Amino acid sequence: MENSRCKVHFFPVDITVEIEKGKTILDAAYKGDLFINALCGGDGTCGKCKVVLGSGMIESMPTAHISVSEAQKGYVLACSTKVIGDLEVIIPEESKLDKSQILVSDFPQFSGSLAAATSKVEHFKHDPLVNKIYLELPQPSLDDCMADYERLCKEIMVKTDIPLEKITTNFDVLKRLPGILRSSDWKVTVTLGYRVSSVEIVEIQGGNVSGENYGVAVDVGTTTVVAHLLNLSRGETIDIEATYNSQIKYGDDYIQRIIYAAQNNAMDLMQEVLVEDINHLISTLIKRNHISIHDISAVVCAGNTVMTHFLIGLDPTNIRKEPYLPAASFVPPLRAREVGIKINNNGLLYTLPCVGAYVGGDISSGALAIRLDKADVLSLLIDIGTNGEIVLGNKDWMVCCSASAGPAFEGSGISCGTRAAKGAIEKVTITKEYDVVYKTIGEAPPGGICGSGLLDCLANLTRSGVIDRTGNFQKGINSDRLRKSDNGYEFVLVDRSKTSTKRDIVITQADIQNLMRSKAAIYSAISTLLESMGMSVSNIEQLYLAGGFGNYLDIRSAITIGMLPDVSVSKVQFVGNTSVIGAKMALFSKDAYEVAGIITSKMTYFDLMSNNKYMEEYISANFLPHTDIEKFPSVAVELMVS
Amino acid sequence: MENSRCKVHFFPVDITVEIEKGKTILDAAYKGDLFINALCGGDGTCGKCKVVLGSGMIESMPTAHISVSEAQKGYVLACSTKVIGDLEVIIPEESKLDKSQILVSDFPQFSGSLAAATSKVEHFKHDPLVNKIYLELPQPSLDDCMADYERLCKEIMVKTDIPLEKITTNFDVLKRLPGILRSSDWKVTVTLGYRVSSVEIVEIQGGNVSGENYGVAVDVGTTTVVAHLLNLSRGETIDIEATYNSQIKYGDDYIQRIIYAAQNNAMDLMQEVLVEDINHLISTLIKRNHISIHDISAVVCAGNTVMTHFLIGLDPTNIRKEPYLPAASFVPPLRAREVGIKINNNGLLYTLPCVGAYVGGDISSGALAIRLDKADVLSLLIDIGTNGEIVLGNKDWMVCCSASAGPAFEGSGISCGTRAAKGAIEKVTITKEYDVVYKTIGEAPPGGICGSGLLDCLANLTRSGVIDRTGNFQKGINSDRLRKSDNGYEFVLVDRSKTSTKRDIVITQADIQNLMRSKAAIYSAISTLLESMGMSVSNIEQLYLAGGFGNYLDIRSAITIGMLPDVSVSKVQFVGNTSVIGAKMALFSKDAYEVAGIITSKMTYFDLMSNNKYMEEYISANFLPHTDIEKFPSVAVELMVS
Repeated sequence: MENSRCKVHFFPVDITVEIEKGKTILDAAYKGDLFINALCGGDGTCGKCKVVLGSGMIESMPTAHISVSEAQKGYVLACSTKVIGDLEVIIPEESKLDKSQILVSDFPQFSGSLAAATSKVEHFKHDPLVNKIYLELPQPSLDDCMADYERLCKEIMVKTDIPLEKITTNFDVLKRLPGILRSSDWKVTVTLGYRVSSVEIVEIQGGNVSGENYGVAVDVGTTTVVAHLLNLSRGETIDIEATYNSQIKYGDDYIQRIIYAAQNNAMDLMQEVLVEDINHLISTLIKRNHISIHDISAVVCAGNTVMTHFLIGLDPTNIRKEPYLPAASFVPPLRAREVGIKINNNGLLYTLPCVGAYVGGDISSGALAIRLDKADVLSLLIDIGTNGEIVLGNKDWMVCCSASAGPAFEGSGISCGTRAAKGAIEKVTITKEYDVVYKTIGEAPPGGICGSGLLDCLANLTRSGVIDRTGNFQKGINSDRLRKSDNGYEFVLVDRSKTSTKRDIVITQADIQNLMRSKAAIYSAISTLLESMGMSVSNIEQLYLAGGFGNYLDIRSAITIGMLPDVSVSKVQFVGNTSVIGAKMALFSKDAYEVAGIITSKMTYFDLMSNNKYMEEYISANFLPHTDIEKFPSVAVELMVS
Repeated sequence: MENSRCKVHFFPVDITVEIEKGKTILDAAYKGDLFINALCGGDGTCGKCKVVLGSGMIESMPTAHISVSEAQKGYVLACSTKVIGDLEVIIPEESKLDKSQILVSDFPQFSGSLAAATSKVEHFKHDPLVNKIYLELPQPSLDDCMADYERLCKEIMVKTDIPLEKITTNFDVLKRLPGILRSSDWKVTVTLGYRVSSVEIVEIQGGNVSGENYGVAVDVGTTTVVAHLLNLSRGETIDIEATYNSQIKYGDDYIQRIIYAAQNNAMDLMQEVLVEDINHLISTLIKRNHISIHDISAVVCAGNTVMTHFLIGLDPTNIRKEPYLPAASFVPPLRAREVGIKINNNGLLYTLPCVGAYVGGDISSGALAIRLDKADVLSLLIDIGTNGEIVLGNKDWMVCCSASAGPAFEGSGISCGTRAAKGAIEKVTITKEYDVVYKTIGEAPPGGICGSGLLDCLANLTRSGVIDRTGNFQKGINSDRLRKSDNGYEFVLVDRSKTSTKRDIVITQADIQNLMRSKAAIYSAISTLLESMGMSVSNIEQLYLAGGFGNYLDIRSAITIGMLPDVSVSKVQFVGNTSVIGAKMALFSKDAYEVAGIITSKMTYFDLMSNNKYMEEYISANFLPHTDIEKFPSVAVELMVS
C-alpha cells in the first residue's frame, strides 16, 4: 500500500513538513508557516511563488511563468506543483513573501523605534475593542429564577464593572442563549464589543475559549491593502499579509475611481473588490495560522476618506465636488457582515474617523500612532502614499492638509517609473564622471525605478550638475548618458543590456518636471501650514515620515531636492506604516480608539486648493530646492550656491 | 357614458361615501371610517360583516353565512357585495366592529377614569420613543466643510440637546444620507429612536414631514391581540383594531402551545402566525386611516412572557421547566423587520419587560398604567385574561404572582361556555322562583355563556340556594330546571327553543367545580401575597381590576363567590386593558418606558407552585365563598350564614 503522506524538506530554512500526497508545495509551505509570495492566492496566475526542486517526485502543470532556462534549473511554481513523494525544495530569496515591497512594519519593532524618538510615548492599557471573557454563571434555582439574559448581564457587570444599562446584545445571541447556557452547564465565554455608548454581547460560546480572541487591523490604501492578524487576548501581532488594492484596475488614484464608479454605476463593484481583497487577506492569515474565522471578532480599518467610503459602501461622489464633503467622518461600529467582510457572523467593523475629504482615517490613525495628542514639541507628520498628507501640531493643536503630490513617487506617470517591487531601482548615486551606481529591490536585474530611487536620482542629477536648479538638463555636460530622443532630452540610468525589460532605463525632462511638481506640492503644503500658524521650519522639533515610501527614502536627498524642509536629519524619524499601526493600537485598546476620535475632532483641516498662499508657495517651490535658497541653507552649502 | 362612481349612504350613522363602481360595501365603509366587523379581513369567510341593503344596485356572491330568512330581509355580506349603483346600506348593531367583544379601552377614556380613582396620577411628558424632528441644516461651504453625517448630528444636538456621543445611526440611513440632503436642499426630517443607551437616527426623509410620525401599541394576549394606532407627534390614539391570536389553533393556553411547538419543531411557526396577526392589524389600521407604512416608526408590544418569547423568536421551553426561566426578561429594542413586523424598514420594536416566567410585560405594563410606582396606598392589581396575574404593592414595594386560574372564565372547559362574543350570556339573575333572567352581548339570541355570565350564574345559584356552599346542587329545590343527565345534575339556564344553537344552555355540576377551582386560584393567590407581606384584606385600599373580563364583571358577584376578597365595592376600579394602555404610555413617553423597566426590576415574583401556603389557601378557598366565612363578612350577611 502506497504511503499517502509525504515529507517536504525546505531549504535554506531547514524545515520539514509532512503533508498529504497530492497537496501542493505551497500548501506544504503554508503548513510550515513559511511565507511564499503568492499574490494571486495560489491559482497559478501571478507566477510569484517560484521554488527550486532539489529532489523528489512531483506532478506539475506547464506554466508560462517558468522560462525554459528556469525549468532546466529546476524552477516550478509552488502553487501548481503537487507533492507526490518526499521532496527537497529550495525557496529562492525572491519568492519569500517580500514584505519590504509592501510596508508591513510590525508594532513592537515600531514602538521601539518610536520610543527612542519621542520622550513621551504613552502606551494605552491593553483593553481590546472586542474582549472575550469567561463566565461561570450562578446555577438557577427556584430561589434564583432570574431570566437567562439578565443572569448573563449581571455576571458581566460583576466581572467587568460595566453598568447593566450599558450592556446590550444582538438577536442572534439572544436566540442561542438558553441553549448554550444549558448545554455548557452555565459556563460560557462572551465576546463583548465596544459600541461607543454601549457594550454589545457580540457572541456567546460554551466553555472557556477566552484565549481565542483575534482581530485584524487593516491599512486600506489606495494602492496596497495591508492586514495584521492580532491575538487580542495576548496583545500580540501574529502575522501580516498584504496585497494590491484590486480597485487599481479602475484607476490609479481614487479620484479616477470615483469618476469610474459614477460613470459606470459601479459603487457596489468598488466596494465588492475592496472587501474581497480584505477577505482574501483575512482568509490567508487565518489559514496560515490555523485560526477559525469565528474567532475573528473585529476588524479595524484605517484608510483615506475615499477608501473608507468605498469600503463602507458610502457614496464618495461629493468628495470631489466643492465644498468637498464626505458622507461621514465618523462611522459608528458596524456589523462586519453588513459590508461583506467575512469574520465571525456577529463580528464588528470599526473604521478610524476621517478628518475631511482629503485627510482620512489613515491620518488620524497616524497621528494616534505617533501620539501627536501627547506631543510637547512641535511635530510634523508627513505620510506619503498615493497622496501626501501632512499634519502639524502638538498636544494642544493640530492642523492638517492634503498635498496633491500625485502618484509620481509611486512611479506612475514617470517613463520608467515602477512601484516598489522586486527589480525596482530604489537607490541611485551619480558619480562625478556621470556614472550611475544603483541598487534594486531584491538585488534583481532592474526593471524600472521606484519612488525612493527617483528622489535619489533627482537629488544626484542636481548635485552632479546634470540638471540645473530649474530642473533643466545641462546639455553641455560630458556624458553619453544625456541624449536627445524624439520627446526631448533624457538621461540613461541603466543600459538595456542590464535591464530585465531589455530597454534602457531613462529619466526624461518630462519626468523631472513631474517629480518637481510632486515634491513642490509636498513642500508648499508644509510651508503653508507653518505660515498659517505663524511658524517657520526652524520651529519644527520632530519630523515623522510615514508611508511605504519612507522606508527607503534618503532623507538628505529629499531635503536636497526641497521636498522636505531643511531640518536637521536627526529630527527626522521614519515611523513606517502608521495607518496600520494606529489601527492596531485602536484594536488593542478602546482608549486608543477613543483618542483617535478626539484627535480627529481636534484637527483643523486646511483646503489647499482654495488657498492663495498655497499657490504662491507652490510656484516658488517648483525649483531645486526652492526659488529662495535661503530657505535651504544646508542645501546652499551642499550645492555651493551663494 | 356610465358613471363610474357610486354613492353609498350608510345608516343609522347617516354618512355618505363616494366610491368607485365595483368596490365592495366594506371598502366603502372603510373609506367612510366606519368600523364593520370583518375578522377574516374581508375574504368572505367569517360572515361577520352582515349589512342590510336599503335600495340600490349590487352584485353579490352567494354565501352560506346568509340564511334564507336573512336574505329575504336584505342581508348581504359587506365584503362580498360589489357596489354597482348608488346604495343605501344599514349597518346592524351586531356588525359594527364590536369592540366590546375584545377589550379595546381607549387611553383618554381610561386616564379620566383612572384619574378619578387615584389621587396621584402623574402624566408623563409627551416624548415618544420615536420622534420626528425637522431640521434645516446649515448649507456647507469651503469654510464649513463638515461631513454630511456630522453636520446632521450636530444639528440634532443643537435641536434636541442629545449629546453627540449618544447619537448613532444605521447603515441604511448612512448610505442614503448624501443623496437626501442634497435633493431636499439640506432640509430634512429625522426619525430618532430611543435605544436605551443611545439615540438612533432611524430614518431620514426630505422636507418637513415631522407630523407624520405614527406608532402602534399592541397587547399581545394569549387569546386576543389588540392594536392601537397612535399619532406620536400629537400624542393621540387614532384607531383601534383587534383580532384573535391565531396561535389558538395550536392550544388554548400558552403551555399547550409551548408543548406543541416543542413537539412539532414549530417555534418559527408560532412566531410567524403571531407576527402575521400583528401585521394584519397594522395593515388594517393604516389602510383605514390612509397612513403610509413607512410612517410607522415603532411598535410597542406588551404580552405575557410566553407571548413575548414567541413574538421575538425566543425559545420559551424553559419557562415550563423548573426553575421556570425566561430566555430574557428585558429585551433591548430591536429592528421590527428582524422579527418580521412590517412597518418602516428601519422601524423599531420595543417589548415591555417581563418580571418572570409567569408574570410578563402585560403586567409591568399594567402596573405602569395604574402608576403603581406612585401609589401611596396599598393597591392590588388583578389582571384576568387567559391567566390571572396579581400585583400587590405601592410606590415602595411590589410583589406579584400568577394564579393558574385556567381558561374557565373565558368559557373554556365549561359545557356551554363561550368567549365574550355576540350572543354570549354576559349577565344572569336567578329569581326566588328559580327563574333565569339573562342579557346577551349584542342582544342576540343566546349561544352560550361567557366569563362574567358564569360568575353571575355561580353567585346567583348560591344566593338562590340552588347550590350549597360546597357547590353541590340542592336536589330538593322545587324547579324543573334542575335535572339529572347522563353526566350528573345540571341546571338549565335557557331552553333550546330560545337559543341560537337549538340546544339547552345548562350549567353542570362539573362546570361549577371547574369555576370554583378557578376562583379559588385567584383568591388564594391574593391571600398568599397578602400573608407573605404580613397583611390582610383590610389593608387593601385600592383594587384595580384589569383585563377583558373586567368590563362586564359584577363585582358583588365576584365577592359573593369568593373570587375577589371582601372589600368595599367602592375600592374596586375597572381599569380596562392595562396591557395596551401601558404600551401606549411607553410609546408616547420614553420616561414611561423607563419607568416600566424600573417597575419590573422592583417587582418581586412569588412562585405559587412551590409555595405550601398557597396550597393550603387554595384548598380553603374551594368553597363558596370560603371555608372560613369570617373572611367574607359581607357575604355572611348576604347569604345569612352565621
